[in-house]
Amino acid sequence: MIDLLIKRGDVFTMAGDGVGYIGDGAVAIEGNTIAAVGRTAELEKAFPAKRTIDATTKAVLPGLIDGHLHTVIALLRGLGQDAPTWHEGVDPYFEQLSTDAVLAGAQLSAIEAIRAGTTTLGDYGPGMLITLPFYEKLGIRAKVCSLISEVPPVESILKEGELYPFDPSIGELRLRENLELIENWNGAADGRITVMIGPQGPDYCSRELFRKIKETAEKRNVKIHLHIAQGDREILQMKNRYGMRPVEFLADIGYLDEQLIAVHMVKCTDEEVERIARSGASMAFCPSSLIICDGIVPPADVFLRAGGNVCLGTDETSSNNGTNIFSEMKLGSLALNMKNQDPTFLPTWKALRMATIEGAKAIGLDHEIGSLEAGKKADIILVDLTKPSMMPVLRDPVRNIVPNLVLSARGDEVVMSIIDGKVVYEDGKITTLDESELLAFIQQTAEEVNEQASKEVRKRRTVQQRLTRENKY
Amino acid sequence: MIDLLIKRGDVFTMAGDGVGYIGDGAVAIEGNTIAAVGRTAELEKAFPAKRTIDATTKAVLPGLIDGHLHTVIALLRGLGQDAPTWHEGVDPYFEQLSTDAVLAGAQLSAIEAIRAGTTTLGDYGPGMLITLPFYEKLGIRAKVCSLISEVPPVESILKEGELYPFDPSIGELRLRENLELIENWNGAADGRITVMIGPQGPDYCSRELFRKIKETAEKRNVKIHLHIAQGDREILQMKNRYGMRPVEFLADIGYLDEQLIAVHMVKCTDEEVERIARSGASMAFCPSSLIICDGIVPPADVFLRAGGNVCLGTDETSSNNGTNIFSEMKLGSLALNMKNQDPTFLPTWKALRMATIEGAKAIGLDHEIGSLEAGKKADIILVDLTKPSMMPVLRDPVRNIVPNLVLSARGDEVVMSIIDGKVVYEDGKITTLDESELLAFIQQTAEEVNEQASKEVRKRRTVQQRLTRENKY
Repeated sequence: MIDLLIKRGDVFTMAGDGVGYIGDGAVAIEGNTIAAVGRTAELEKAFPAKRTIDATTKAVLPGLIDGHLHTVIALLRGLGQDAPTWHEGVDPYFEQLSTDAVLAGAQLSAIEAIRAGTTTLGDYGPGMLITLPFYEKLGIRAKVCSLISEVPPVESILKEGELYPFDPSIGELRLRENLELIENWNGAADGRITVMIGPQGPDYCSRELFRKIKETAEKRNVKIHLHIAQGDREILQMKNRYGMRPVEFLADIGYLDEQLIAVHMVKCTDEEVERIARSGASMAFCPSSLIICDGIVPPADVFLRAGGNVCLGTDETSSNNGTNIFSEMKLGSLALNMKNQDPTFLPTWKALRMATIEGAKAIGLDHEIGSLEAGKKADIILVDLTKPSMMPVLRDPVRNIVPNLVLSARGDEVVMSIIDGKVVYEDGKITTLDESELLAFIQQTAEEVNEQASKEVRKRRTVQQRLTRENKY
Repeated sequence: MIDLLIKRGDVFTMAGDGVGYIGDGAVAIEGNTIAAVGRTAELEKAFPAKRTIDATTKAVLPGLIDGHLHTVIALLRGLGQDAPTWHEGVDPYFEQLSTDAVLAGAQLSAIEAIRAGTTTLGDYGPGMLITLPFYEKLGIRAKVCSLISEVPPVESILKEGELYPFDPSIGELRLRENLELIENWNGAADGRITVMIGPQGPDYCSRELFRKIKETAEKRNVKIHLHIAQGDREILQMKNRYGMRPVEFLADIGYLDEQLIAVHMVKCTDEEVERIARSGASMAFCPSSLIICDGIVPPADVFLRAGGNVCLGTDETSSNNGTNIFSEMKLGSLALNMKNQDPTFLPTWKALRMATIEGAKAIGLDHEIGSLEAGKKADIILVDLTKPSMMPVLRDPVRNIVPNLVLSARGDEVVMSIIDGKVVYEDGKITTLDESELLAFIQQTAEEVNEQASKEVRKRRTVQQRLTRENKY
């Protein structure tokens, strides 16, 4: 007798090169693993189950994957918008982030994510040692890294183009932290938590540190998660230090390969983006965040055209400004179509693949998740197609479910999330912990950070403070 | 004793030139009218109420305004995407739309809209005689028009650039229908339903018919709601018929003034957009729909820069693909920022104004709705700020509620909608009718239309049918 049978659903396995639709479909789950996927009639006979879930008029999908986000600053939601640079608004708060704030940020992101169908977070620290015990308890899947930089906190006092100093002792410390993460958490929680390695950007680590990081990544067989060409400042640093642009530098130090998850790349030339794509590296595409922060669409179109593999990411709740992959599917598709003035550039089915199987591939988990196939981990969401925003449901000769999942769903149509075989979200509630307690802690912690930052915010007369005083906020 | 007192909320009145914030705010409602807006302490004393609603940690806002949509084709959701032209996908269904389908489309749009905080629909027919009795019962506010065209259904058989024939008898009939709407429905349902006049586009009516429409609009003092420069086909028709581009023609026939709501304008030059804006006309900006259909951002940036007034619209559930103004606020802001590569181009507070007071102005209802002020109609929504997607809530020195309303809200944070003084949505339910009955009717009607259209869809081998067969849908 298996543990769980989901039956009578509109199942999208995402296997193969499309969406792998099975009408009147079923998924059999044993422990944390998918035992079988097929027609209800077949699976019902073959798999008597302890619990059966009727998924009539529900889309049954692999859980969505948020390939790149920093939960650590989620508490700063709505504090950096409407300004030439997002940093100016959030920096005074950022300087006051306590360990409680790091934890509360992870809680806020993870709760919001689960409520919108996300089952895996590609969380890019720092702060993971604070965050991971919470993820373990919550039951979410996470692929995380620490943030590695060897630049002391002097950026703000340097002149434009003046080289950041490197402090190898800081670099060593950060690398050691990431190593400890690998040692203590890679494969933890029955394999739900796995670890990557996270140099902050080409301009934040020395050649020597990059060499050690690559060596570690190869030895431990973990992915390298790296921001690339995030801004003009980085380009200038790289040119002044090495006489090279970031991508040239990364090629030079042997970083362009399948181990790499390349994030943002907004200041890359098309040729540089293509070079990364052709190397086998994946891209993390965070449309909302980059458009909100910089008014720029990351070059996922160029990356895809060059044959690259792309995952979606929410980046930061404080810039995005949410943790909702449904929203990124829609916005990602629209942003690329708009950029290319072509309504067919990123079809909805492709956006859904980027949020599932191709997202899993990007973060190195496609052997375990991203599609519903026998032997994979049971990360599954059920989306209620009888919600007004998903109606009507038509199946033949045109099946309208995929475009409606990508372009119409708000996130609250998700009625169940199963992660690693366990029902983590059901009937509008997270099952593994007391959400109202967490939300109270989140609010209280945010107020504490706010209290600490207030004086500095007033002193710096941030754009957002002016907007508040002018009654625009 | 008044009917209703909302107290202790974060009230955004939208009065003045900002968002009109009142902390610990209250709104007193008598019948369908706002009696007073102010601090809780003051209003509590002055206005004993039959019912009091505690709005602690809720944003209290004017109901959102969807200034331009065609509910008539809402049933065709998800049938026209991922193709070079949206028309090819939806046309076979469009040809099968029954009166039931028109009604079901309006039901679907209106339910989805109310569930996402919309309280006023700028519905652009045809089919309004079928739709309006439903709106009356539902309790939503609507500003509607009929669609006026005098082109017989021959467009598809004409060669490119060949002039559409005009049939004055069709024009007369359509104008008469709109006139009947004005006579029978303008001011109906205690004034909740008002009427505009809706020529389809510069290329769809003769000069003579446009003259009569303008005469009618002036005599009845109603707005003219008109698509302008929707596509290359229209430009070519106008050039071939009059030797003028659409805007030149509209200037020539005296249409550029405050009575005009100009829709889309995607094929206008910047100078043409500026000319319309300076005339005092308003613009209906439907970002999702135009980006999804054509990969184009409508020129709201140009219109705003020229000092024009803009409302948001969802256009069509079948292209948008939803009826959610929260989504349009976010996407509208991001699309314009992206187009201008400037993260400050359309600030969040401005997007909120476009969805409320400036939206009301566009459709000629700013004397009644769009802001919370004594004497205006009580169209009010409550947004729960304790939902994870809206947290944390900070008020001083930076108030983060407005950016979070615009950039984070999914729509399901709306917990109450009051329209014309009546609670129409509460506790997740529409109060005026049985939603499950409607949803069943919507689904059944969609299946009937689908059944009727199936043969033709197969015959035409639409893109969407191919995607379905290839397991991409």
